[in-house]
Amino acid sequence: MVRFLVMYQQPTDVDAFEQHYRDVHIPLAKGLPGLRRYAVSRNVRPVRGEAQFYLVAELEWDDMESLRRDFASPDGRATAADVETLAQWSAVQSMIYEPEDV
Amino acid sequence: MVRFLVMYQQPTDVDAFEQHYRDVHIPLAKGLPGLRRYAVSRNVRPVRGEAQFYLVAELEWDDMESLRRDFASPDGRATAADVETLAQWSAVQSMIYEPEDV
Repeated sequence: MVRFLVMYQQPTDVDAFEQHYRDVHIPLAKGLPGLRRYAVSRNVRPVRGEAQFYLVAELEWDDMESLRRDFASPDGRATAADVETLAQWSAVQSMIYEPEDV
Repeated sequence: MVRFLVMYQQPTDVDAFEQHYRDVHIPLAKGLPGLRRYAVSRNVRPVRGEAQFYLVAELEWDDMESLRRDFASPDGRATAADVETLAQWSAVQSMIYEPEDV
């Protein structure tokens, strides 16, 4: 499994952010054929470190190959470009990793 | 499901960090009775934002109540205290959130 984790800081305009996230961003991302799971949390409690996040999104693909294929597609590029719109309201940090059970 | 996410920056001493993480930290955390899954990734690729992480650990509990019970137990307190040892080699950031499928 490959995880794409996206962490959004407190938006400057919560209503505009939420509306765009719900009406545009989620539908765009859910159109990606390789996406296996998309989960969101708005109740993020920091335990250690200074960063406070407003929203954390977890997206899953089966493997790096299917993630790459989706990211390279027109829909994938549109989804990535849409993060620029969200970033006008919220600082965004994202990363890709492959969790392995220990 | 409740996620406990721990992000470690590049350790100052990788060997010491890895040895302690493997021999002490993982066994401590895996002793927590409510822990449902513990997965680690060392191959973390930043997509957006400046932070670079060396290791990301995902831990799962069924719900907030079982996580709280484990964190309040002697084993839970020992696991949390052990992060102080790891933090001598690596800046640590952690948070708790509850992912909901969208």
